[in-house]
Amino acid sequence: MLTYSFIKDNSVSLYEQLYRHMKADILSGKLAAGEKLPSKRALSGHLEVSVITVKNAYEQLMAEGYIYGIEKKGYYVNRIERPLQAAATACDIQAVKEPTWFLDFVTNSISAEYFPFTTWAKLMRQTILEQDKALLHATPYNGAAALRSAIADYLHQFRGMTVAPEQIIIGAGTEYLYNMLLQLLGRDKVYAVEDPGYSKITKIYKSNGVALQRIGLDENGLSAVQLRQQQADVVHISPSHHYPTGIVMPITRRQELLRWASEGEGRYILEDDYDSEFRFVGRPIPTLFSVDKNERVIYLNTFSKTIAPSIRISYMVLPPHLLHQFRQNLGFYSCTVSSFEQYTLASFLSQGRYEQHLNRMKNRYRQKRDKVIELICSGELADRAEIMEQDAGLHFLMRLDTPLSDRTLREQAMQQGLRLALLSDYYSCPENAPPHVLVVNYSGIDLDKLPEGLHRLAKILEGKEHV
Amino acid sequence: MLTYSFIKDNSVSLYEQLYRHMKADILSGKLAAGEKLPSKRALSGHLEVSVITVKNAYEQLMAEGYIYGIEKKGYYVNRIERPLQAAATACDIQAVKEPTWFLDFVTNSISAEYFPFTTWAKLMRQTILEQDKALLHATPYNGAAALRSAIADYLHQFRGMTVAPEQIIIGAGTEYLYNMLLQLLGRDKVYAVEDPGYSKITKIYKSNGVALQRIGLDENGLSAVQLRQQQADVVHISPSHHYPTGIVMPITRRQELLRWASEGEGRYILEDDYDSEFRFVGRPIPTLFSVDKNERVIYLNTFSKTIAPSIRISYMVLPPHLLHQFRQNLGFYSCTVSSFEQYTLASFLSQGRYEQHLNRMKNRYRQKRDKVIELICSGELADRAEIMEQDAGLHFLMRLDTPLSDRTLREQAMQQGLRLALLSDYYSCPENAPPHVLVVNYSGIDLDKLPEGLHRLAKILEGKEHV
Repeated sequence: MLTYSFIKDNSVSLYEQLYRHMKADILSGKLAAGEKLPSKRALSGHLEVSVITVKNAYEQLMAEGYIYGIEKKGYYVNRIERPLQAAATACDIQAVKEPTWFLDFVTNSISAEYFPFTTWAKLMRQTILEQDKALLHATPYNGAAALRSAIADYLHQFRGMTVAPEQIIIGAGTEYLYNMLLQLLGRDKVYAVEDPGYSKITKIYKSNGVALQRIGLDENGLSAVQLRQQQADVVHISPSHHYPTGIVMPITRRQELLRWASEGEGRYILEDDYDSEFRFVGRPIPTLFSVDKNERVIYLNTFSKTIAPSIRISYMVLPPHLLHQFRQNLGFYSCTVSSFEQYTLASFLSQGRYEQHLNRMKNRYRQKRDKVIELICSGELADRAEIMEQDAGLHFLMRLDTPLSDRTLREQAMQQGLRLALLSDYYSCPENAPPHVLVVNYSGIDLDKLPEGLHRLAKILEGKEHV
Repeated sequence: MLTYSFIKDNSVSLYEQLYRHMKADILSGKLAAGEKLPSKRALSGHLEVSVITVKNAYEQLMAEGYIYGIEKKGYYVNRIERPLQAAATACDIQAVKEPTWFLDFVTNSISAEYFPFTTWAKLMRQTILEQDKALLHATPYNGAAALRSAIADYLHQFRGMTVAPEQIIIGAGTEYLYNMLLQLLGRDKVYAVEDPGYSKITKIYKSNGVALQRIGLDENGLSAVQLRQQQADVVHISPSHHYPTGIVMPITRRQELLRWASEGEGRYILEDDYDSEFRFVGRPIPTLFSVDKNERVIYLNTFSKTIAPSIRISYMVLPPHLLHQFRQNLGFYSCTVSSFEQYTLASFLSQGRYEQHLNRMKNRYRQKRDKVIELICSGELADRAEIMEQDAGLHFLMRLDTPLSDRTLREQAMQQGLRLALLSDYYSCPENAPPHVLVVNYSGIDLDKLPEGLHRLAKILEGKEHV
């Protein structure tokens, strides 16, 4: 007969425990559909509980449809079904699968093995011990004070930015913060993005249905002339390292943009500083935010790219005059990052662990990049490839000497199991892009397979089938 | 002389370590502005490092503006300033402070002491150990499969809903999910909310600039007649327990709303099931989602209200036909909840801890509510107060017998240190509300102070000053 053990727990009655045991068995199939249950009296004797306990449990199971009773015969297990329709649709959706590649030049796997996992786990345990129940209270709308202070210190020491912790707003990813900024700055504004640029940014603005202009780049980055022509109000740029061209915006262009911003009511520059941590050559150029005298720049950055993609913590720094507006109009939103992780990151920053981590990552990425470039330059592709924009970040550009179109190049590479990203992919009009320039996201490249991958690529450029 | 210890760490050079030590001392003020630094040679001898090391450190400090050199004299510490303006603004903003209350009938403190902190911390540690580096990979846009499965099981067992894990989308708070839904369903739609209702919902729609209609309630909840008149496309309701009226929408009205939804193209019902966990009397009514045959209902719920406000995990369940659309149009968004907490919650759910926690909470809230009501009904206010809508959730209504206006009532209470929420606060036109009905959020009420608080309230109703 059914045998269950009961625990002494004042908050959960015996009947409730019995009900749960039986329900679990029905759901798991241990008690099969149609199976006859023992009589109330028999089960009560067997489990040494009162008949009332069994009766209550059976009644609740009946009310919820798990069992049914037949008069004078007894109780039986019902058939429990999951809806077929939903499951089928879900399967259809899951069926969309990525192909497997011999070599993937596209996906940057921010290497998990580089993450100081032990340190992070230790800090998380410490946070749980030290903060204890304080962790259960929601942090303010702009994030935990400890984290905002730690970020202000970090920005001061490593980006030369002097900001008050109160200017910082914490959010679960920059994508979330962009959504907040649209609500802060207004949907009636004309937004401008870089062309070429990071496609997710464009998607977010489009998905929010605001007016969007794409502004071309010259060798110094986003064109200030075009920006004026397009009558944009808010421009979203990454001056410290543009993706994918790798352009670092020089100070003259930065000043031009700041001038543009200061000349019109409601003009703002969103400075997306992603990737600025991985600069390999030369000193970083000061942020636009730190040069701006007119409170026209909103600075954004994230820890998801540098620590781990699964840790969703980003922040933005607002100029003082927007703080009040944010608090008044959007202060009702709860902070989207859990307090556990906010406090853990605060310790990670203030104990210097983040800096240490970044330095290690930078060394490792530099080494990886050097090896990838060395293999390219010493291999079969040497005469037909020119490496560009290799000073910073997790990608570089590689111009191939070939008459093949970008489309043909990609298709032929795909047949050889090579996944390529082309510069033209990042242009709103691909025909405006310089042709056959690969965007090489090197951090995930398998070095052992690279010579063979380059061999296959060389064969394509020579117009020969891979042998 | 300056004394620093160096650690042997291949990733951080000696010069870098020296530079950091000195920078930290300058920032903290240990090295004061104008202070002369030891000569390179002297410091190198003192610290037993090479002169080159000191030279490199000094040069980096100079390049970053922390120190300056005077020819033939030496190196001096620069004056480092934080921007006064930002700090001042920040102070202004911080100065807005909440008054302190003798008794607060408004704030529901979801009691931290009720949270199974030890269990949660243990599961978090287990998650870190078991998942290890898998934690560093971002979860899919819709959340970790383990958590979605656990939620599907939970919904099946406790809400009678049969959904596939693929229908579930995880997000950092329902507020975030509303923003996603606006992007999924479209900004061109007319949205409708309950009037009276939870003001944050209205704020979110307003902040996103969509067309918004407020629909009145009758004794069965949101009026289907008004909904038709207002030509709404999407209606946001909480049928299982409306805030603040406490109305549980009966099955007839639910069917009316489902009929409305099935009659027009693009009509949807957002079923906000917040608070459904704390039902004290009677069995819960099945969710609209589970009754809906036409895929017109999107179900939303959150763990922030039941576990802890600092844990930002919510979810929505989409009808199958919206899954593909979500994936295609919004699948580029990263999931906003960190993987650490997703896996921890998945264990919390699948090990039955959540259910156990909810049962305990329910018992405790019921006890608290009973004591508060008992004190009201046995005290000075007994003849002038009528308790209503006490069957569920963390609040009840209390109608006061008084000729005072809501405004006067609130102001006089405030003078007595009593913080009141009135039903009229939740109406778009307060004059449409039944007057002098208090919304009592009882979970945070200090029972020891309650008799004195009720005494003060009774005096106000009697039109006498508090003695």
